[in-house]
Amino acid sequence: MTAIRPVEWLGDRLMIIDQTRLPQHEVYLELADVHQVAEAIRSLKVRGAPAIGVAAAYGIALGAQQIETRDPEKFRREYQSVSAEIAATRPTARNLFMAVERLAAAVGKAGGVIEAKEAVVDEAEKIHSEEIEATRKIAEFGAALVKDGDTILTHCNTGPLATTGRGTALGVIIEAYRQGKRIEVLATETRPLCQGARLTAWELKREKVPFRLITDSMAGHFLKESRADLVVVGADRIARNGDAANKIGTYSIAVLARENGVPFYIAAPSSTFDERIATGAEIVIEERSADEVTHLYGKRTAPEGIEVCNPAFDVTPARYITGFITEQGVTAPPLKI
Amino acid sequence: MTAIRPVEWLGDRLMIIDQTRLPQHEVYLELADVHQVAEAIRSLKVRGAPAIGVAAAYGIALGAQQIETRDPEKFRREYQSVSAEIAATRPTARNLFMAVERLAAAVGKAGGVIEAKEAVVDEAEKIHSEEIEATRKIAEFGAALVKDGDTILTHCNTGPLATTGRGTALGVIIEAYRQGKRIEVLATETRPLCQGARLTAWELKREKVPFRLITDSMAGHFLKESRADLVVVGADRIARNGDAANKIGTYSIAVLARENGVPFYIAAPSSTFDERIATGAEIVIEERSADEVTHLYGKRTAPEGIEVCNPAFDVTPARYITGFITEQGVTAPPLKI
Repeated sequence: MTAIRPVEWLGDRLMIIDQTRLPQHEVYLELADVHQVAEAIRSLKVRGAPAIGVAAAYGIALGAQQIETRDPEKFRREYQSVSAEIAATRPTARNLFMAVERLAAAVGKAGGVIEAKEAVVDEAEKIHSEEIEATRKIAEFGAALVKDGDTILTHCNTGPLATTGRGTALGVIIEAYRQGKRIEVLATETRPLCQGARLTAWELKREKVPFRLITDSMAGHFLKESRADLVVVGADRIARNGDAANKIGTYSIAVLARENGVPFYIAAPSSTFDERIATGAEIVIEERSADEVTHLYGKRTAPEGIEVCNPAFDVTPARYITGFITEQGVTAPPLKI
Repeated sequence: MTAIRPVEWLGDRLMIIDQTRLPQHEVYLELADVHQVAEAIRSLKVRGAPAIGVAAAYGIALGAQQIETRDPEKFRREYQSVSAEIAATRPTARNLFMAVERLAAAVGKAGGVIEAKEAVVDEAEKIHSEEIEATRKIAEFGAALVKDGDTILTHCNTGPLATTGRGTALGVIIEAYRQGKRIEVLATETRPLCQGARLTAWELKREKVPFRLITDSMAGHFLKESRADLVVVGADRIARNGDAANKIGTYSIAVLARENGVPFYIAAPSSTFDERIATGAEIVIEERSADEVTHLYGKRTAPEGIEVCNPAFDVTPARYITGFITEQGVTAPPLKI
């Protein structure tokens, strides 16, 4: 089995697997400039908060490398526009802005244009390796929470594809299975874009972890019927008080888990924690295109000319979260990473 | 605008609108024998608990009419097989078994074969007109619960298509709108078979009721954000204590409504109440084909060769239900209709 390479820096371009084509087609794309990287993030060819952060960093690095000037002032102006283009792709995932800010700081410290170009690539590679290392530790800390015989409910996709590393929530699950624990997974399909049905199912099947695919509306039923012992999901942005934005539907699962006495964990690297916001009320929720709800795979399900809501995320208040699994260990909210 | 005719008795055959083809195609089918009616119920060409009850009654009546014997004993044996074929189509909706039992009682009382054949048709037509009348009263009693300016969340499809009458939950909504109340509807798409996206959206659009389509996983988010004032859904079977089986996902919405202080009503005719069962634990939940989850409209979303769960219904415990809207008025559980 070939390893999945969700995001790979090739020195003068960025290679990604096109996640919109999975599971039917394993297509790798080479992105040659910052515009192509921005488009890939916007259209979810690369997605998952940590993977967005890594792709964003490389996208800015690619854009910075291609600025054709030796004048530091002109470089700075063009760098601003490169950086702004990436920052405008998606609003919710903290990791994207973490990447933007870290690369801006690296440029700020660099002496001249050549040093700045080197510094952004170095910083992007540093972010990438830190994310990989963070998911390794998250998988180990999280696997310790999983008992032999557990059924684990998860939502959306949080595996290697979403992180470039071992995964957050799905990394925990795969690690527990590799440790020999007899586990089963209930994976939600995750409408509207079916990251669960398309990507989590594909990753779990590759890893041979026993799982069953369910529709999102079944999660509550299985929690009530005591068919899940544990919920583990990822996050896109976590406020200081522990309120956590994640894929739409996460809040519902958290409430239903608490109602039925099932522990609800969020697995996320520290790059997802936003120290500058006090609560989830400050998190911007991305509203995506109506077509995602009225169609599936280009096929219309609903009548023409109707109105739709399509928030891509919701915010789970900290009081529903049993704990956070981070690269520093497992902690309960409210917390400061 | 032509009226929708979900189920229509033509004297020697049954006409239905094929609900699996909506909203793209308005196709009417003429069903010529009990086998065709049984197949139409099984494959959801006709669906919705009250409409299943009506179609089941006519299906048995059709089968009984076509029994070619004057011998009462032989007629009774063949009638048993006709009735059993309809009873085996789907396990959860109480209305189907209500129809089976009422027609059996009518046959039992009849003097001979000719009287029995007349009695089953009469009883089927009586069931049909009672269901239409029940939904008229449900719509009126329920509309009184809706305030001007309310946003009403509903799940699955409970309109004319589902009932042959004015609808249960959707009948309430449409009646409130006709009364001039400025309302909005949040309609869930209702995976896996998208009765919300396909049928509820189609019916609301026909009636010009303002609505927005959402995925099932968004219901909790909008309840939390105070974007819904009221939840009204239908039911497939209700136990003596008020536990109610309805489309998968209903239980989750009920829990999320209570968590956010939003009233949660079930609208259902008395034919959906099952006096013979004490609690929801006795309700058989239909498990449907895996294809419904791995595919949408014949298009595969998930990888090949994976396992799936596909319960078509869940049971909402009575404690989450604010009240039942029936043809007799609005009552709170536990109740005896």
